[in-house]
Amino acid sequence: MQTPFRFTIHKQDRSTRARLGRMDTPHGAVETPVFAPVGTQATVKTLTPRQVEETGASMVLANAFHLYLRPGAETVARLGGLHRFMAWPHPVLTDSGGFQVFSLENLRRVNDEGVLFRSPIDGSEHLMTPEKAIEVEELLGADIIMAFDQCSLPLDRAQAEEAMRRTHQWAERCLVAHKRPDQALFGIVQGGAYADLRVESAYTLSEMPFAGYGIGGLSVGEPKELMWQMLEVTVPCLPATRPRYLMGVGAPEDLFEGVSRGIDLFDSVLPTRLARNGAVFTRHGRLNLRNAQFATDPAPIDEHCGCYTCQHFSRAYLRHLLQAGEVLGLVLNTIHNVTFLVGLMAEIRAAIAEDRFASLKESFLAEYTPVEEEVRLRSAELYRRRRST
Amino acid sequence: MQTPFRFTIHKQDRSTRARLGRMDTPHGAVETPVFAPVGTQATVKTLTPRQVEETGASMVLANAFHLYLRPGAETVARLGGLHRFMAWPHPVLTDSGGFQVFSLENLRRVNDEGVLFRSPIDGSEHLMTPEKAIEVEELLGADIIMAFDQCSLPLDRAQAEEAMRRTHQWAERCLVAHKRPDQALFGIVQGGAYADLRVESAYTLSEMPFAGYGIGGLSVGEPKELMWQMLEVTVPCLPATRPRYLMGVGAPEDLFEGVSRGIDLFDSVLPTRLARNGAVFTRHGRLNLRNAQFATDPAPIDEHCGCYTCQHFSRAYLRHLLQAGEVLGLVLNTIHNVTFLVGLMAEIRAAIAEDRFASLKESFLAEYTPVEEEVRLRSAELYRRRRST
Repeated sequence: MQTPFRFTIHKQDRSTRARLGRMDTPHGAVETPVFAPVGTQATVKTLTPRQVEETGASMVLANAFHLYLRPGAETVARLGGLHRFMAWPHPVLTDSGGFQVFSLENLRRVNDEGVLFRSPIDGSEHLMTPEKAIEVEELLGADIIMAFDQCSLPLDRAQAEEAMRRTHQWAERCLVAHKRPDQALFGIVQGGAYADLRVESAYTLSEMPFAGYGIGGLSVGEPKELMWQMLEVTVPCLPATRPRYLMGVGAPEDLFEGVSRGIDLFDSVLPTRLARNGAVFTRHGRLNLRNAQFATDPAPIDEHCGCYTCQHFSRAYLRHLLQAGEVLGLVLNTIHNVTFLVGLMAEIRAAIAEDRFASLKESFLAEYTPVEEEVRLRSAELYRRRRST
Repeated sequence: MQTPFRFTIHKQDRSTRARLGRMDTPHGAVETPVFAPVGTQATVKTLTPRQVEETGASMVLANAFHLYLRPGAETVARLGGLHRFMAWPHPVLTDSGGFQVFSLENLRRVNDEGVLFRSPIDGSEHLMTPEKAIEVEELLGADIIMAFDQCSLPLDRAQAEEAMRRTHQWAERCLVAHKRPDQALFGIVQGGAYADLRVESAYTLSEMPFAGYGIGGLSVGEPKELMWQMLEVTVPCLPATRPRYLMGVGAPEDLFEGVSRGIDLFDSVLPTRLARNGAVFTRHGRLNLRNAQFATDPAPIDEHCGCYTCQHFSRAYLRHLLQAGEVLGLVLNTIHNVTFLVGLMAEIRAAIAEDRFASLKESFLAEYTPVEEEVRLRSAELYRRRRST
C-alpha cells in the first residue's frame, strides 16, 4: 500500500517564509499554499460540487461535530463516507469540532475526560472526548482529520494555559485512538495570544507524530497584529517538513500575511458568508452589492475575473437578485468569492515559483483596501454575540 | 428581415388532439408541446441559466408585472433587455401580470381604463393599463409577450362575464399598442368555468391577429374535471394554426391531459415550488424528501433519471440538506423536478412522432399516482389564503 498522505516541499522563498509544496492524499493532490472553502454540513453553502470544482478548489472542509449531530457519523459511513455522501471525490479535511463545541450555548461541563454538552438541534446530551472525536472522523472518512482541542479566549492567560495543557493531553489520546492508515491526523497548536505558550505548544506537539499542524485559537477577535506575532513565534517551532494550517483565516490580505509567515493551508467561512450578505471581493477591496449605486451598473463584479458569475452577470442583476431575495444571488456571489480566494492562492503559488512573491504581495496590498480594523473587530464582536444568544 | 415568430405544425395525432410542432423565435426554436419553467423575477428560482439549460428547457417565463415593480422595465432595457439581464440567450415569454395584479392585497380600483394598485414592495401607487403592460413587455424584450387580461373567480358568472368582456377590450388595445415586430403577442382566453363564455372568448379573440393564444383563469382551484371540460370546448374554437398555451398548469398527469386536448405550451411554478418544499417527482408519484424514511436511503430520487441530482446524490443526502436548511437542497431538488417535467414533454413529443402518444399516456398514468384531488384542492385553498393575508 502506498503512503496515504505525503507532504512535499518544492521550493522555499528567499525573502519570506513562504514555500511551495504539495499534499498527496488518497483522493488526489493539493498544491500549497492553498485556501480550502468550508462545507460545514457537507456542502459548501449554496454550491454544487461541480460549481466548487469550477472555482479551482482542490480540497474542502467539513465539520465532524456538526455531522455527528446530524445526520450522524454512522449514517454517513453507511452511505459510503463523506466523499461519496457529498459527491466530492477530491480531498476533504474534517475539523474535529473543538472550536464549535466551545462556542455552544449549552456547554455543560469541561474536564480532562472531555466535553459534556446539549445538542443545539434536539437538546440531547452528548459527551465528546478525544477518542469519540477520532471515532467520528474515522467514520466520516476525510483525508485529513484534526485532533480534538480546547479553544480559549485570546487574552485570558489562566484559561489559555489550561486549554493548552488539555489540548496537549487530548492530542496524545487522539494519536492513540487513531487507527485508519488512509487518514492523516493533524495536531492543533493553542496558547491564546501568549508567545511563550504558543512556543511551548508548538514544541510539545512537534514531539508527537502528527502528519501536520493546525494553528488554532487565532482570528477569534484579537487584533490582527497580535495574530501575526503569534504566527511569527509559532511557525519556527513546528517541524519544517510538515504542513502548517492556519485555521479560520481567509481575508485576502491575511492570506498574503500568512503565506509570508510560512503557512501552507487556510480555511474560512468568510467568502461564503460574505457572499450571502451581498459582499464580494475585488482587487480593490470588498463591494456590497446591496448598495443602491449598483442598481444600474452593467459591469461584472470584477472585470478581470474569469468566474461564471463575472462572465455572465452584471452588478445590477446581482443586486436585483439580492433585493428580490432570490437564492441565485447567493449562489452567484459565492461562486465569485470562492473563485477569488482560490485564484489568489494560485497566483501566490505561481509567484513563489517565479521568485516574485514579495512583489506580488506588495502590489496586491497596494491596490487592495481591506475592511478597516475597527469595522472588522466590531463585526466579529457582533457575530460572537449573535452566536451566544 | 425574416419572420420573427413562426409556428409550424409537424404532425397531428390520430386518436387525440395532440400535435407536434415548433415555435421559431428570434432567440431560437422551441419544439412543442413543451413545458416552460417559470422565472418570475428573471431567475428560475435557485438555478443558474446553465443549470436551466441542462434540464433541457428551451424557453423560460418571466413576469412583466414583477419586473416592472423591481428592478423596473427601463432598468432592464438599459441593461440590454431581459435575455442579457438574466443571461438566458434562448426564448423567453413574459406574462403581462394580469393574474398577479388581481391577486394583490392592495388592489385599489379596476375599471375599463385599467387597474390601480399599490406596490407590495414600497406601497407606491400604480396604474396598469393594456398600453402600459405592452410598453413594459416591449422594454423587457421577451420573444413572446402576453396581452393584459382580467382574471375572475371560476364560479362567479357575473364576474366571469365582466372580466371576459374587459379582457376582449384590452386585447384590442394591446394589439394597437404593440409595436416591436420581433415580439409575438398572444391573446388570453377567459370565461371562468362557463362553457358558453369560453366559446365566446375563444371565437372573439380568434378574430384578432394574435400570434398565439393563452388559456387563462384555469387551474385556480376549480375541480380538474371542470378544467378539462373548459379546454375541450375552448380549443376547437381557436385557430388551428396558432399555438395554444395552457397557463399555470404543470402537474405531470395534467400535461398528458392537456396535450391530449391540443395544448402546445405549459408553464407552472409547481416543479420549482415543490422542490423548495422538499417534494420531488418520480414515475410513481411525488415523494417528500423530508420524510424520516429517507434518512438512510442510498437510492437517487429516481433510478431512471439522468439529471445531475440523480446522477450524484442519494435521497439521504438530499434529506440531510433539507433538514440542515442548506440552499443546495433546494437547488438539487429544483434541478430534478424541472428536468423531470421537461423530459416528460420530450417523451411525449417522441411518442406523438411515433404514433404512440395514447399508449404512453396510458402507461404513464397507470404507473403515476397523482396527489389526491382533495389534498390538491386543500393546498390550493391554503395557498390562496396565505397570499391574501
